[in-house]
Amino acid sequence: MGIVVLYGSSRRDGNSDTLADLLVEGLDVDRIYLSDYNLQPIVDYRHTEAGAYPDDDYHELIDRVLEQDTIVFATPIYWYGISGVLKTFVDRWSQSLRENREHFLAEMSAKKAYVIAIGDDEPHVKGLPLIQQFQYIFDFTRTQFDGYIIGEGNKPGSILEDAAALTRVEELRRRFTIKD
Amino acid sequence: MGIVVLYGSSRRDGNSDTLADLLVEGLDVDRIYLSDYNLQPIVDYRHTEAGAYPDDDYHELIDRVLEQDTIVFATPIYWYGISGVLKTFVDRWSQSLRENREHFLAEMSAKKAYVIAIGDDEPHVKGLPLIQQFQYIFDFTRTQFDGYIIGEGNKPGSILEDAAALTRVEELRRRFTIKD
Amino acid sequence: MGIVVLYGSSRRDGNSDTLADLLVEGLDVDRIYLSDYNLQPIVDYRHTEAGAYPDDDYHELIDRVLEQDTIVFATPIYWYGISGVLKTFVDRWSQSLRENREHFLAEMSAKKAYVIAIGDDEPHVKGLPLIQQFQYIFDFTRTQFDGYIIGEGNKPGSILEDAAALTRVEELRRRFTIKD
Amino acid sequence: MGIVVLYGSSRRDGNSDTLADLLVEGLDVDRIYLSDYNLQPIVDYRHTEAGAYPDDDYHELIDRVLEQDTIVFATPIYWYGISGVLKTFVDRWSQSLRENREHFLAEMSAKKAYVIAIGDDEPHVKGLPLIQQFQYIFDFTRTQFDGYIIGEGNKPGSILEDAAALTRVEELRRRFTIKD
Repeated sequence: MGIVVLYGSSRRDGNSDTLADLLVEGLDVDRIYLSDYNLQPIVDYRHTEAGAYPDDDYHELIDRVLEQDTIVFATPIYWYGISGVLKTFVDRWSQSLRENREHFLAEMSAKKAYVIAIGDDEPHVKGLPLIQQFQYIFDFTRTQFDGYIIGEGNKPGSILEDAAALTRVEELRRRFTIKD
Repeated sequence: MGIVVLYGSSRRDGNSDTLADLLVEGLDVDRIYLSDYNLQPIVDYRHTEAGAYPDDDYHELIDRVLEQDTIVFATPIYWYGISGVLKTFVDRWSQSLRENREHFLAEMSAKKAYVIAIGDDEPHVKGLPLIQQFQYIFDFTRTQFDGYIIGEGNKPGSILEDAAALTRVEELRRRFTIKD
Repeated sequence: MGIVVLYGSSRRDGNSDTLADLLVEGLDVDRIYLSDYNLQPIVDYRHTEAGAYPDDDYHELIDRVLEQDTIVFATPIYWYGISGVLKTFVDRWSQSLRENREHFLAEMSAKKAYVIAIGDDEPHVKGLPLIQQFQYIFDFTRTQFDGYIIGEGNKPGSILEDAAALTRVEELRRRFTIKD
Repeated sequence: MGIVVLYGSSRRDGNSDTLADLLVEGLDVDRIYLSDYNLQPIVDYRHTEAGAYPDDDYHELIDRVLEQDTIVFATPIYWYGISGVLKTFVDRWSQSLRENREHFLAEMSAKKAYVIAIGDDEPHVKGLPLIQQFQYIFDFTRTQFDGYIIGEGNKPGSILEDAAALTRVEELRRRFTIKD
């Protein structure tokens, strides 16, 4: 049982990647770069007979997530929300609810979650709805929302000038260490 | 110049579809069911030479949107946010900014927008971050955010029992009529 | 067991008063116009020996609130929040927690609450933090947050032109009737 | 032209006081402990002839605020919002608008503001509506919202263990220094 990082960025080495990498540096981590996978939008079968869900990489990815006890969501703030690819992945959790609701919720409720969100347009104010959305998500899955980092950055690497974000990384790292 | 409706649901005849259809009933409308199209996630070229953007239906769709002066965003509330397919579409606006920033913003700033969001888990509270996100989006594009409807529904058709949502539809319809 | 209305406005017959009166018209109601009473700010004794709390009307008012099983909070939106006098009253709940925590929480957790908030500067967007604040308050006291109405109005009586607010009043009234 | 700190706590040496004092340590500051003053709730004369406003300390305090070019709002999070006494003070700005709207807005729009909010019940999530409320306030007065610190603390002094809050203090201090 360890840490899985869900990278939501559409490019490598963006600021949310960088901050997430600092957070888990030196730790044994399963890294999932969502944009490397084939993830189709959810099909909503809540009120019909379940048909075929998309034949893509979802099951592989959610299985890797459920194997760990800590999830780090690392996303750039795109249009004041999480990235489309990360949202598409989360939407697919409805498939897991449909396929095995009790199992999925039991697993998710035993985990801790962290959110890293990096934006360039007043993220400390305009990123707040994103944080509130995650709170509602974790309330539903009964996952422990153990902390978040909002960072300000635009050009690659500029997050390294955000001193408060870096300090917050150090704080959260201490929790990992204490746990182990 | 008229109305375009962006349907964000993954199924036809869901509650957000139903309410949007009531809103524009009898009017000349361009209906875009996003899940019918091929829409790939944004590629982030903000800090690199622009490479090839996905060869999919985005240009066709954004052109249809820009032709109208009123945009209705109709989305189910999935995991306390807009649907993944609608988020993916909005994320692609960054491509339009990159391709022709001045044109895109000039067009968007001349439009009115309405949001319809339907959920089944306390949407009048847990849907609020979604509304705040749209406010920030429209602040950025300087689009007039002329109104929203949060509705409560789960099973197909149940939105028709949400009296406040239906009244709000009537109210917003009056604005369309006055305009014409 | 019935309904208590907490009027937070600083003037009589303002729009939040008007809408609250419509909500409870014809019902047996205890009306508390907070601005008619002497309510001093909370004194924080959480970490010291409790000294004397203000000798004012708080105990009378909170006793009247606790006697009923439904609370309606009717407030104008002042500076994007509840009125100062209503906030001062809510702050004093910390005194009740200090004086008899179990009793206060047991009582509050058995009640339903409604919020009416009327503003004139985009209340449907800029009033949302106020609603979220109430949600957190009721989560803490385990009070059932049964509904809210955001209305738009400025001049006295203008709330009567807000058709969606009036419809929402009718909806909430039905819940009272069903209960009785 | 310098800094004014508005202390909203009901007790001295609470955590919001402590953090604000660190923020302005060694600087020339006008300190206003709001609970030391006589501040009555706003009387709403927006739609009537203005009568007598409360004869209390408001004018003295707002004059002291307007003399400075930087305002620090330091408040405990009481019931998921700013303290009642601070809300009462802000509500009274409506009196200043009524008495001399142009002057008040001209003054406020030339200032920078900082917010310090300390709570003990998940303040990094449940304090977000408070931050959004301030954003709307400063949007209205066109005051530059230059930064905020959410801290976690309960017992006096415990804020000194909140490493991220302390780092954020250092960051904001640098802005004061650069300015001078």
